[in-house]
Amino acid sequence: MIEGIQVIGFDADDTLWVNEAYFLETEREWRRLLAPYAGEETASAELYRTEMQNMPLYGYGVKAYMLSLLETAVRITEGKAPAQVFEHIIRLGKEQLSRPVELFDGVEETLGALAGRYRLILVTKGDLLDQEQKLYRSGLEHFFHHVEIMSDKTERAYNQLLKHIDIRPEEFLMIGNSIRSDILPPLALGCYAIHVPSLAVWEHEKVDAPLAHPHSYTVGSLKEIIPLLTGED
Amino acid sequence: MIEGIQVIGFDADDTLWVNEAYFLETEREWRRLLAPYAGEETASAELYRTEMQNMPLYGYGVKAYMLSLLETAVRITEGKAPAQVFEHIIRLGKEQLSRPVELFDGVEETLGALAGRYRLILVTKGDLLDQEQKLYRSGLEHFFHHVEIMSDKTERAYNQLLKHIDIRPEEFLMIGNSIRSDILPPLALGCYAIHVPSLAVWEHEKVDAPLAHPHSYTVGSLKEIIPLLTGED
Repeated sequence: MIEGIQVIGFDADDTLWVNEAYFLETEREWRRLLAPYAGEETASAELYRTEMQNMPLYGYGVKAYMLSLLETAVRITEGKAPAQVFEHIIRLGKEQLSRPVELFDGVEETLGALAGRYRLILVTKGDLLDQEQKLYRSGLEHFFHHVEIMSDKTERAYNQLLKHIDIRPEEFLMIGNSIRSDILPPLALGCYAIHVPSLAVWEHEKVDAPLAHPHSYTVGSLKEIIPLLTGED
Repeated sequence: MIEGIQVIGFDADDTLWVNEAYFLETEREWRRLLAPYAGEETASAELYRTEMQNMPLYGYGVKAYMLSLLETAVRITEGKAPAQVFEHIIRLGKEQLSRPVELFDGVEETLGALAGRYRLILVTKGDLLDQEQKLYRSGLEHFFHHVEIMSDKTERAYNQLLKHIDIRPEEFLMIGNSIRSDILPPLALGCYAIHVPSLAVWEHEKVDAPLAHPHSYTVGSLKEIIPLLTGED
């Protein structure tokens, strides 16, 4: 049982709602579109390379992704793709931005049980507007005290968050699906962390190191968080 | 003289540093690129139409702008532009994102004079990462208590800001170049506002209404703010 927690930070994408699966669907459509010019493996590998190159300039989120899809399309078609291909890619990205928010099982129940006892905040990265709109469409807005959007979920960013909400590290618990972004940085600062693994994990978020730390827990689903915090079943 | 202020919010783009002029330069290059397909006036009008259509989905910022430049290019060339045109547009956007930050006259002097007496915060919209990077490159980071990035500068967003920093409206002063985004919403909430007009104003930010309000001031340059607040010359 974890005690002394004042504030709980929840990751959003792939922790509260489906996200990575939508990126993978867009990528599948994009590869199909480029099939006359490049094989699937080449296309995916080149896309990942473009994304990593653009990361320092674009950051995370769907708009950055769209720009990398377009840039990679120019490159792997060696400039031979007609304008309709670029038009189609823009449409795919807009469709992804407009998708309804699909909550995971037990999200509302878990947030409802915790909202009365702790201050809950949403801690996410990506496009500010896109994340705000997803939170609004999710119907979960009222559970959260506020939203913290970081350009990247680094130790430095979490440290600023702790200062900002003015609590000690051991009073903060972070919950999320990415070991790299949601778990390791808060642990390094002395916070608590609960890892909720998701099915689809983006290559960039993968971490090899095993997770063994006195302040860290792993659960199979969000519902298992409640007994960890309250001692209740 | 304005009295009783606790916190001063500074807009960033076109208030502390050059911004709109870079958008205009990118647009000029983009029109030149498309000159074989469309006249300058048509191109600019179509771009603005695309931007306004995409605003609810993309929000503000350079990445949103790049996507609208690309989409408009497909449309006004009727699908006839080769892939090299799209590649070139992506390059123009990346160059804009990488430009050095060019401060206006008197910025450091003004912030330096105010930072000891008030809590200063940066209140901006656009891409989170882009704004953070500009602040970092500007060398002005140390003057500001923190950065508030809004998806749009609405009355609702300023109201959340006041709650967040926990002060009364009449203790907050907003300083910026956009009447629509920096001046009218804070005034409507009972805050103070100082308008610092800039040379280049984006069509979307233009407001027809004259500015006459007991809590509002207009200055010719940032340096004129100090005597307004301190009574000193």
